Amino acid sequence: MSQKVVAVAGATGLVGRQIMRTLEDRDFPVKDIKLLASPRSKGKKLTFKGEEVEVEVLGEDSFKGVDIALFSAGGGTSKTYAPFAAKDGCVVIDNSSAWRMDPKVPLVVPEVNPDDVKWHEGIIANPNCSTIQMVVVLQPLHKAATIKRVVVSTYQAVSGAGVNALKEMEDQTRAILEDRTPECKIFPHPIAFNCIPQIPGSDAFEDNGYSSEEMKMVNETMKIMGDDSIRVTATTVRVPVHTGHSESVNVETETKLSADQAREILGAADGVIVQDDPANQVYPLALDAHGKGDTFVGRIREDLSHPSALNMWIVSDNLLKGAAYNAVQIAELL
Amino acid sequence: MSQKVVAVAGATGLVGRQIMRTLEDRDFPVKDIKLLASPRSKGKKLTFKGEEVEVEVLGEDSFKGVDIALFSAGGGTSKTYAPFAAKDGCVVIDNSSAWRMDPKVPLVVPEVNPDDVKWHEGIIANPNCSTIQMVVVLQPLHKAATIKRVVVSTYQAVSGAGVNALKEMEDQTRAILEDRTPECKIFPHPIAFNCIPQIPGSDAFEDNGYSSEEMKMVNETMKIMGDDSIRVTATTVRVPVHTGHSESVNVETETKLSADQAREILGAADGVIVQDDPANQVYPLALDAHGKGDTFVGRIREDLSHPSALNMWIVSDNLLKGAAYNAVQIAELL
Repeated sequence: MSQKVVAVAGATGLVGRQIMRTLEDRDFPVKDIKLLASPRSKGKKLTFKGEEVEVEVLGEDSFKGVDIALFSAGGGTSKTYAPFAAKDGCVVIDNSSAWRMDPKVPLVVPEVNPDDVKWHEGIIANPNCSTIQMVVVLQPLHKAATIKRVVVSTYQAVSGAGVNALKEMEDQTRAILEDRTPECKIFPHPIAFNCIPQIPGSDAFEDNGYSSEEMKMVNETMKIMGDDSIRVTATTVRVPVHTGHSESVNVETETKLSADQAREILGAADGVIVQDDPANQVYPLALDAHGKGDTFVGRIREDLSHPSALNMWIVSDNLLKGAAYNAVQIAELL
Repeated sequence: MSQKVVAVAGATGLVGRQIMRTLEDRDFPVKDIKLLASPRSKGKKLTFKGEEVEVEVLGEDSFKGVDIALFSAGGGTSKTYAPFAAKDGCVVIDNSSAWRMDPKVPLVVPEVNPDDVKWHEGIIANPNCSTIQMVVVLQPLHKAATIKRVVVSTYQAVSGAGVNALKEMEDQTRAILEDRTPECKIFPHPIAFNCIPQIPGSDAFEDNGYSSEEMKMVNETMKIMGDDSIRVTATTVRVPVHTGHSESVNVETETKLSADQAREILGAADGVIVQDDPANQVYPLALDAHGKGDTFVGRIREDLSHPSALNMWIVSDNLLKGAAYNAVQIAELL
């Protein structure tokens, strides 16, 4: 790959920093890097490949001469600025939900639908974190046995809500341990020592009772896997974990797969690591997945309640495969 | 009800103490109370209705003159001592899993199958905590629309593993907050800031890949609800919460129920409180359920992936409705 001028929009956020680290770790051919953020972060300095880089204010003209822009600055910012980047010939890889369901924008997980990058018109969307780790596991099973229906319940980490959310969880944790009342600024209820069946904020619910996060899992799965017949229902839940989303996934297939067959298929799948020896306490764990780019799957069992279904437990680092790592993988495809 | 001589076996444990508190709170007609435990706790004093009661060592002869014995001392102890109690004319209400699937032992949730207490032969079993809160919600839906299949994923609190497990979680939490390595003695992996898809201990897995906790949800649900045609599949997970189990439950019914119909049915059900206004952040939470005897249900939605199914979020205090409260309710039925 030739050397690229790369911009990171939203560089100071949790995902922005992970993108920089992932570019370093994967030795992405960066000719020059441009770090962009809101005026609040102007002049701030971040380190990339051992050198200090000053953060610039994101604007309409930020993308002249930039080859690839990795956006992780929220939906509003992407909606406004990604078109300017695209107009200047830069390819945007966007982490927000702003463009994901746009029919002109490919929604890509490199292990699942790498060819979809080919039809981009300047913007490529990075899917929702919970969806990415699920489809990486679903796709090889779908190829082998045709998935008909998925029932998923998530156990999502707090880092998905940003660095201030992590601080809030830690402050609340200390408060509860010291018998003080936990304070809530970001979360609607204490997340420390609790499970909140709402992701993300207060405007999150549709008329059908589903949260926007749940509908992302329904709609993005069909788009990434390129199959509108895959029916998904989701219940998305925040749990007091720093980083690493866990998912309990029930998968109904047209052709019956045994647990052994599923383990064999997933053992050979790109980006998937099978950890499945529960009698020896081997299964995926959020704490173990933290910092890794792969998706981990275990607790694979034939569903006792259905003639052709499997249960499994899928875990991945929501900031890496769920965001930064997947985005950099897309950049590598270009 | 006439005054009863009541024994609590396993009085010093988390559930034992909750049983004593529940007997007080519900003003159960206790003529005399006998607190029984292992030799380790001999001579320890616990307070019941303002008076100190000395703990006695549980033995074969502990139950002479006792009307009702509430056992929460583990499966081995129940297996050994419950028959001695029954032989002496005492009715045992047992919290362990030792007797639950015995065809001569009723397995009772008072809101679901109160009449089953009638055929006891000296021992009545209290179901598994995760199962109790689920069937309290399932039963009225089953009556209305005939449940065919249930897919459940649990978010289970640490208090289910006892008082030392709670201490371990808190110690691990402090360690992680202070950048020290968390120590594991009870849990196979750190539970602080993590989700462990294994309940309970290391001998927990069957050949089919299910844990014993998961199989309890499968088998006990059919026995309590008196219907072998209800198929259940479960994934049971420990989360870093002190008290209050949460469950994400997908229910397929023969007759289609709308979310509104389900809310109406559950709103009228015994022991169930509907908390379901997600746009205003109203849904059941473990932290809120703590200390309450009811079962809370919310996030009720029609399943987008199935013509006749519902998703819901069920929360209850695992030490109360999941154990002590249900046991005392059974005692009240006698």
